[in-house]
Amino acid sequence: MESVKPYKKSFSYSYTLGAFPTFELLKARQEEEQPDFSIQAVYAHDSFTGREHLERLCTAQNIPILPGEKALNRVSGKENVFVLGVFSKYEQTLRSDRSHVVLVHPGDMGNLGTILRTAAAFDLRDIALIGPAADIFHPKTVRASMGALFRLRHQYFESWEAYRAQYPQQEIFPFMLDGKITLTPETCPHPPLFSLIFGNEAAGLDASFHQKGTSVALPQTSAVDSLNLTIAAGIGMFLFTQTGRPDKTVSL
Amino acid sequence: MESVKPYKKSFSYSYTLGAFPTFELLKARQEEEQPDFSIQAVYAHDSFTGREHLERLCTAQNIPILPGEKALNRVSGKENVFVLGVFSKYEQTLRSDRSHVVLVHPGDMGNLGTILRTAAAFDLRDIALIGPAADIFHPKTVRASMGALFRLRHQYFESWEAYRAQYPQQEIFPFMLDGKITLTPETCPHPPLFSLIFGNEAAGLDASFHQKGTSVALPQTSAVDSLNLTIAAGIGMFLFTQTGRPDKTVSL
Repeated sequence: MESVKPYKKSFSYSYTLGAFPTFELLKARQEEEQPDFSIQAVYAHDSFTGREHLERLCTAQNIPILPGEKALNRVSGKENVFVLGVFSKYEQTLRSDRSHVVLVHPGDMGNLGTILRTAAAFDLRDIALIGPAADIFHPKTVRASMGALFRLRHQYFESWEAYRAQYPQQEIFPFMLDGKITLTPETCPHPPLFSLIFGNEAAGLDASFHQKGTSVALPQTSAVDSLNLTIAAGIGMFLFTQTGRPDKTVSL
Repeated sequence: MESVKPYKKSFSYSYTLGAFPTFELLKARQEEEQPDFSIQAVYAHDSFTGREHLERLCTAQNIPILPGEKALNRVSGKENVFVLGVFSKYEQTLRSDRSHVVLVHPGDMGNLGTILRTAAAFDLRDIALIGPAADIFHPKTVRASMGALFRLRHQYFESWEAYRAQYPQQEIFPFMLDGKITLTPETCPHPPLFSLIFGNEAAGLDASFHQKGTSVALPQTSAVDSLNLTIAAGIGMFLFTQTGRPDKTVSL
């Protein structure tokens, strides 16, 4: 395989930096029905303490564990990282019979990863990205997702229209500060198939989204301008998936 | 006044970096009933476009606007910052007749700021920090809070016991992955006075917190290890303040 270099968006592969996302990568490869990604190698530092567990997972999947010191230094920058996984990037399509989370121009890799992690926690497994968007495969995104990326399907679209043309069935709920419905457990709609639409951190969704579906807002005081995007998305996903249908509530 | 230097925790003052938190600082000083902080000066870059609004706020409060270029370069590091406020640090006590948010050893300034912003959005104005804790006055925290810090009361405690000795009335709800109650709008308790307790990003709350009150958890799938701290805190604050009492729901 190619030698390990600092990540660039143009690469056909990316990295999991750190033990947690690397273990998630390996476990998802083993547990998910038809994972779309392949794992090319794992690098581990001599002093990594979880080596036995790592070897068990890698051996079962015929993934080589390579000596890590040089590769880790080259890739991880300032951070203290003892394990690194190399996986091939992949393309996916969303399931048309599932509800979606649609992120319009997400700009921050940390926020994108956090939203992926939250979506997986609430069993929203289908994520649409409307470009331009932060790089979902960047090691920073992967790390912020805590490896949840590998439990989800995601698909990139050049425009909202391209997404909607392919997935016309979902009922659309754009999250906007001046949304028509203020969301509470009582007011939150619960259609069988929905798409929750979230805008960019700084700009939100433009006014045209009022016409694309039923715009929704979260209650908040005037003490702050708005909720942080990841918090709004978290509460929104919670309300749509965990309220209103006691039979469908997931439990720990 | 002293010359502007890169922030250190030992300083008796701190900075708002950027237009948004600086405007929030100035507005809070004007609007809050008895703000505990004073604003020593504001620095603005020549090319700052919101100067007129800034001058109006500063003149009304007799706060000098100083030329910014040098000060901004010295303090802001790599970031592009056109406005900076200098405010004196302050000590506060919480209101005993209000519900609290208690953060046990928060480690990350960005997360701390985000939680402050969310608490203000849901009208939880009293924040206890159990040390060691990230510096609530650090410009990074202030910035992540989007200035919400200035709309809240906060108090630092050396230990949980010190907090509890001073505020014995609040009903205690530690957020723990193995909490006794899985929170939904239906199961969420709504006592008149409560404290929501959140642990550190990495370690959570230790098992002893099961005995300190009624431990609670958020529903989630097994696809992720846990929710991000700020997301869990956001959903928790939402449930405790925005559900179960339709009369008290705040609106936009």
